[in-house]
Amino acid sequence: MIRALNETHDPQAKSWVTSANTDSTPFPIQNLPFGVYHNNGDHPRIGVAIGDCVLDLHRTTDAKLLESLPIVTQAACRSRYLNDLMSLSKGHWSQLRESLFKLLHESTPPGQKSILEGLLAPQTEIEMHVPCRIGDYTDFYAGICHASRVGSLFRPQNPLMPNYKWIPIAYHGRSSSIVISGTSIRRPSGQAKSPESDVPSFGPIRSLDYELELGFYVGSGNELGKPIPIERAEANIFGVCLLNDWSARDIHVWEYQPLGPFLAKNFATTVSPWIVTLDALAPFRCAAFVRSNGDPKPLPYLYSATDQAMGGVEISLEVALSTQEMRDTGIEPYTICRGSSRDLYWTMSQFVAHHTSNGCNLRAGDLLGSGTISGNSSHSSGSLLEMTRQGASAIQLPNGQLRGYLESDDEIVIRGWCRREGHVALGFGECRGRIDG
Amino acid sequence: MIRALNETHDPQAKSWVTSANTDSTPFPIQNLPFGVYHNNGDHPRIGVAIGDCVLDLHRTTDAKLLESLPIVTQAACRSRYLNDLMSLSKGHWSQLRESLFKLLHESTPPGQKSILEGLLAPQTEIEMHVPCRIGDYTDFYAGICHASRVGSLFRPQNPLMPNYKWIPIAYHGRSSSIVISGTSIRRPSGQAKSPESDVPSFGPIRSLDYELELGFYVGSGNELGKPIPIERAEANIFGVCLLNDWSARDIHVWEYQPLGPFLAKNFATTVSPWIVTLDALAPFRCAAFVRSNGDPKPLPYLYSATDQAMGGVEISLEVALSTQEMRDTGIEPYTICRGSSRDLYWTMSQFVAHHTSNGCNLRAGDLLGSGTISGNSSHSSGSLLEMTRQGASAIQLPNGQLRGYLESDDEIVIRGWCRREGHVALGFGECRGRIDG
Repeated sequence: MIRALNETHDPQAKSWVTSANTDSTPFPIQNLPFGVYHNNGDHPRIGVAIGDCVLDLHRTTDAKLLESLPIVTQAACRSRYLNDLMSLSKGHWSQLRESLFKLLHESTPPGQKSILEGLLAPQTEIEMHVPCRIGDYTDFYAGICHASRVGSLFRPQNPLMPNYKWIPIAYHGRSSSIVISGTSIRRPSGQAKSPESDVPSFGPIRSLDYELELGFYVGSGNELGKPIPIERAEANIFGVCLLNDWSARDIHVWEYQPLGPFLAKNFATTVSPWIVTLDALAPFRCAAFVRSNGDPKPLPYLYSATDQAMGGVEISLEVALSTQEMRDTGIEPYTICRGSSRDLYWTMSQFVAHHTSNGCNLRAGDLLGSGTISGNSSHSSGSLLEMTRQGASAIQLPNGQLRGYLESDDEIVIRGWCRREGHVALGFGECRGRIDG
Repeated sequence: MIRALNETHDPQAKSWVTSANTDSTPFPIQNLPFGVYHNNGDHPRIGVAIGDCVLDLHRTTDAKLLESLPIVTQAACRSRYLNDLMSLSKGHWSQLRESLFKLLHESTPPGQKSILEGLLAPQTEIEMHVPCRIGDYTDFYAGICHASRVGSLFRPQNPLMPNYKWIPIAYHGRSSSIVISGTSIRRPSGQAKSPESDVPSFGPIRSLDYELELGFYVGSGNELGKPIPIERAEANIFGVCLLNDWSARDIHVWEYQPLGPFLAKNFATTVSPWIVTLDALAPFRCAAFVRSNGDPKPLPYLYSATDQAMGGVEISLEVALSTQEMRDTGIEPYTICRGSSRDLYWTMSQFVAHHTSNGCNLRAGDLLGSGTISGNSSHSSGSLLEMTRQGASAIQLPNGQLRGYLESDDEIVIRGWCRREGHVALGFGECRGRIDG
């Protein structure tokens, strides 16, 4: 189930794209994440990030450099969206990755290399797009520290619901309002009721927040009525991105009972543009969340020994905030949170197995959010809600400004990295959004 | 905002398709609902129902019978889905309706009529499809009797939440598992915890239920960040269908806190195939739900005088149940519920205005469910949950069988009709589903 290590993970491997060989690049030849971009007047197309460049997969296919691959893979590489590629299998994805690794490796024959050089563009010159048609977006709630801390704010007697350690709790999100990193986020208006008031009112919301999450893109999926067993669940995940699930806390408190979040969430969700594949993440796998002694063992449909041993993935995450004043005065963005994917109580395989356990069908390109990732300390709070206790204890920025929630022109940037001794570090790039108004 | 009456609503109008002129047809010439179907080896295409036939809009366009219409309308009529047509405007939809009315009217010139006769197929020979790509599916909760009665089962102290009369409560549903009428519904498995047990277990669910709803298809939609004011909301609704929001009650009780329904709902939602346009419904409009004296007036963003006066639509609904034994012994399906859309607390315009009030974008083809429609009596319970008080008081069928919840091979058929003095009655057809396993 877990992808095996092979030559594409070789820490000694270098690319002829020299920017891919620096320590600081998120995109060494061991990464090769997929995205969709356009350059000047070209149509949007699939690309793969390498160092500070992107390789045009449409033209690479047209140049017959991928002709050893199945026709379906070549056709998928010419698509405007990643869905066609996602709908193939783990085997197809791995083959493509291996081919791209060879093409971008320093040992590539000079003839091929000179063709490929013409198919590269600097990442600074391209515009990224949401990489696939996202049919359905599901947001889980697997960050146990987040669930506990938020629960204690809203339900002091009962912070963690009795179902939490049995079910990977989730709700359906909105796919229409998923936007790509860099899109500005308009402050929503909404209906809210303050505790002091007898009646609600409508207006621009006050408690605008970010949520630090990972996103998992579904690959091949399943037919309606055919659950995916946990042993085969991970083969259905194409890759991982960073995700900011923007939240309007004042709307949430007033609307969420009894059917859960709706307008508090669906005004915008930002995704990072590059999808890091599970093949690339193979060296960074780890055990599932280690449950406390009193915690129940997952029910059989959520349990596999392999998943318990290796179903986690270790990703270091950080969230930086900058205000207009900070940017105007040359002050660096301030890191307000350092988190880790290891704080997720459920694995991606458990997400897939649970989601399909009732026969619900997942389709290629569907997005599964992890839920907000927080650790135990206030420096690892994946949202301002937790960090500032509902805005009550504002945080102080390096220039002395205070923030309870986000204000106009504030910018949030999420970054993610995988680092492990003996392996080349790889990154996810950025998930960036600035509040407009 | 409300569509005006015109010649297409003339109760004297007859079609040359004689089956459209009978009292019993849901599809007289005054209706003309749109759907997507295929016939034999043809590709799926858009059709309009007339009597017991369907007219092929692709071929009608090819035959140049719609050439007075804008090119965009003609192109949309050749599409495989209704999204292109939906994405045009109310003006385009009305123009197309008027053209189809003339073509199918008994006064159509014989030359045109003989061409059109070749473009008709009997509805018994075609197969219907989900009529559009449904990007996002939102399910409201506007049936106030349902919300009160269900609330009293789950939260006796607090049946109707304080927000209910202020907010059109809704949650995001799952679009991938929306199926067309006639698709069999597999009984889901799921995790549930009985009150007697300390721990949950996983297996086929026991309390499988239907929910009687209407579905509203979004037309043109809005850009992210640009709310649709209530005065312009209805112009964004393309039409209405019947909807059965199948529900697994035992999963629901265990999973729904704190983020709302998920696996209890997303295993299947059935829609009826024909979309009745708001033009066709113009003679059947009525006032919005009449609020009690103590109820709050809607906040300004949810209030318009026109919507209060005419924003409702009067649709009579019924739900029939048949069991395998009933069908084997020739016993007619038993009508277990008679309901009315007048029991919806919020109007479709309020749905659209609220949904977009935070800037959330609706796209052509998105589906808005009304929420379960129940009346005050047990004969108007839009779900078995209410009718049988969580299965405790089983209903007796004509052959003596008892039903607390749905059992294997049970079939639910929802039908809807608009009837008003001085107008030709029109129907929605059927929303049918049989439990498989």
